Amino acid sequence: MTLHRDTVARRIDVEAHRLLVAGPEGNEQLIGYDKLVIGTGALPARPPIEGLELDGVHLLHSMGDTFELVRTLEERSPGSALIVGAGYIGLEMAEALSARGLSVTQMEQLPEVLPTVDHELGSLVHAELERQGIEVLTGTAVESIRRSDIGGLRVEAVGATGSAVTRSIDMVLVVVGVHPDSELAAEAGATLGARGAIAVDRQMRTSLPDVLAAGDCVVTHHRLLGASYLPLGTTAHKQGRIAGENALGGTREFAGSLGTQVVKIFDQAAARTGLRDHEAVAAGFDPLTVESEADDHKAYYPGSHRIRMRITGDRATGRLLGLQLFGHRDAEIAKRIDVAATAIFHGMTVDALSDLDLSYTPPLGSPWDALQQAAQAWAGSL
Amino acid sequence: MTLHRDTVARRIDVEAHRLLVAGPEGNEQLIGYDKLVIGTGALPARPPIEGLELDGVHLLHSMGDTFELVRTLEERSPGSALIVGAGYIGLEMAEALSARGLSVTQMEQLPEVLPTVDHELGSLVHAELERQGIEVLTGTAVESIRRSDIGGLRVEAVGATGSAVTRSIDMVLVVVGVHPDSELAAEAGATLGARGAIAVDRQMRTSLPDVLAAGDCVVTHHRLLGASYLPLGTTAHKQGRIAGENALGGTREFAGSLGTQVVKIFDQAAARTGLRDHEAVAAGFDPLTVESEADDHKAYYPGSHRIRMRITGDRATGRLLGLQLFGHRDAEIAKRIDVAATAIFHGMTVDALSDLDLSYTPPLGSPWDALQQAAQAWAGSL
Repeated sequence: MTLHRDTVARRIDVEAHRLLVAGPEGNEQLIGYDKLVIGTGALPARPPIEGLELDGVHLLHSMGDTFELVRTLEERSPGSALIVGAGYIGLEMAEALSARGLSVTQMEQLPEVLPTVDHELGSLVHAELERQGIEVLTGTAVESIRRSDIGGLRVEAVGATGSAVTRSIDMVLVVVGVHPDSELAAEAGATLGARGAIAVDRQMRTSLPDVLAAGDCVVTHHRLLGASYLPLGTTAHKQGRIAGENALGGTREFAGSLGTQVVKIFDQAAARTGLRDHEAVAAGFDPLTVESEADDHKAYYPGSHRIRMRITGDRATGRLLGLQLFGHRDAEIAKRIDVAATAIFHGMTVDALSDLDLSYTPPLGSPWDALQQAAQAWAGSL
Repeated sequence: MTLHRDTVARRIDVEAHRLLVAGPEGNEQLIGYDKLVIGTGALPARPPIEGLELDGVHLLHSMGDTFELVRTLEERSPGSALIVGAGYIGLEMAEALSARGLSVTQMEQLPEVLPTVDHELGSLVHAELERQGIEVLTGTAVESIRRSDIGGLRVEAVGATGSAVTRSIDMVLVVVGVHPDSELAAEAGATLGARGAIAVDRQMRTSLPDVLAAGDCVVTHHRLLGASYLPLGTTAHKQGRIAGENALGGTREFAGSLGTQVVKIFDQAAARTGLRDHEAVAAGFDPLTVESEADDHKAYYPGSHRIRMRITGDRATGRLLGLQLFGHRDAEIAKRIDVAATAIFHGMTVDALSDLDLSYTPPLGSPWDALQQAAQAWAGSL
């Protein structure tokens, strides 16, 4: 059955195994199902800022939001943009708008940018943003956006010291995270979990009979933390594949997330997998986090870069719990975090990382890879 | 105790726990030991080529050989070089000499360059060499090197079709592999193994009491093949660390090699880990090898590269046995092979690679990493 692309799901009749949908003109229709997969995703968080509805203010989340933003950029050629939020999307937007020639100001309410990594690495991201000409204001909470007398927008915020911060700007992007769009499932009686996301088992089955769900609308199983809310593209792909297979009679299980993430910030990259120190404490571990540095490849071969690493392991068992990396975009940061993610997946100890037979050639590595050097620094600190 | 740097070990007196050494002037000395670690390394293979002793012909292996080569390059400014062998070192030398402005010819006796990967990938390395101006002659066996009448050297070889191939050249490098330098240990009665290397257990102990050995002179434990001869820098570092720890009373075990290797060839890189199809057959597996291609990162983001992948798994158990990669030097080939090496280390199935929580951001990856796409292609072929 083919439905119009603007068709929306209105209600699930769990008993009758039917879904009520409405087309673009409001015309309703009942569709029977044997198995139903919900993939309603997430909605952008709306922070308590006055003026979010103004023309020139964009809450970025869907494809439609992006098309609208591109239209604004093309039709109005704004010269300046203010980005509220300095998470993954906020950082990517800062780079993208800067590459288009806009003057960019980034405001983040928390004390440091990229709060999903430790502030020691966040501060390196911060420095890279400033090196690239971005104005970065951390500890700064936006309170209101108003249409300015001279055209454009006027953003009023409270800075780190409590003082007022104002900026006149052509365009505002608000990217401060998302929350699960679980309304359809909730109204049908589905059990919700962390952050109001739809609760699912490892086979992506909701509490409703014959209804599965996947992606940014569901609770994600984390291998070290259990039920979490972790809306990520990689996770959504895996869960969708499993929900699809199981809707057709399969019994595949979602193996779980480790919260592995990477972001490029201009010429640098930052990545993490597993748990940070405070997350490990909260999960009942006795963690030790050790910071170290190593070359991405032998320094005598041209083009080497230092990698800053923070490795977290459990003192009691020696188990590897997490890794955070910061380094040049050419320093294979993304795939190095993936080696650690694979190691954590298998419950390796930090010490055993030195046993891994990793590749080496002077232009691309070291006989002990940076990761193994970090592991040895950790073991030495223990 | 500090010995002169040119001191050589002459004989081990196992009973008396003493080592006879000779200084640079031949002055002998007996040194007592509690534990002895042998790290005599390997010696370059001398192929049956006439004229290897000629001035201008270099057998490349030790630091000393390299210094001598650099002296030749600096003092004589040769305009052309012929490299016998197209393994890792031969390829690296082709690039290095080409970067110095020499005209380079590479001769390889086997049908394709880089014979440690399948010829499908070797042929891509071959094409990159030619694209960079290297003359590549495969299936070509060098028979003799003579001093030419007009100065320089004359190399005579037999080409792939049996026809004579001659080249007039300023300099010849011979890099056709190594064999273990196990003479000292053998004379003391140590058991030898594969390729005449010193047999050691997982704790790097030889058959001689209180004598350990590590590196290119020993038999290496391969996690899938058992005892092998695999002289690699990464392995030597690991074994040396273990031998050192155990000489001081430790009981650490060498976890084993997977033959993980990577080489950069100008703008490209080739890597492998684990077993290739024929190696898997020889080891008693029922392998399936599937070739596929994927982008290193989302193609809509500038600068993406295709990665050519050959994945080998066991039909009966689904177990991942090996991976070979070829792609651009910026495509994180080295660390992608390391993810596979970590997966093989833990006995993962090919199918389970899709369960790994790997990192994603459009400039650096895909929601399913190239490796996972290769795994899915393999599962589809099965």
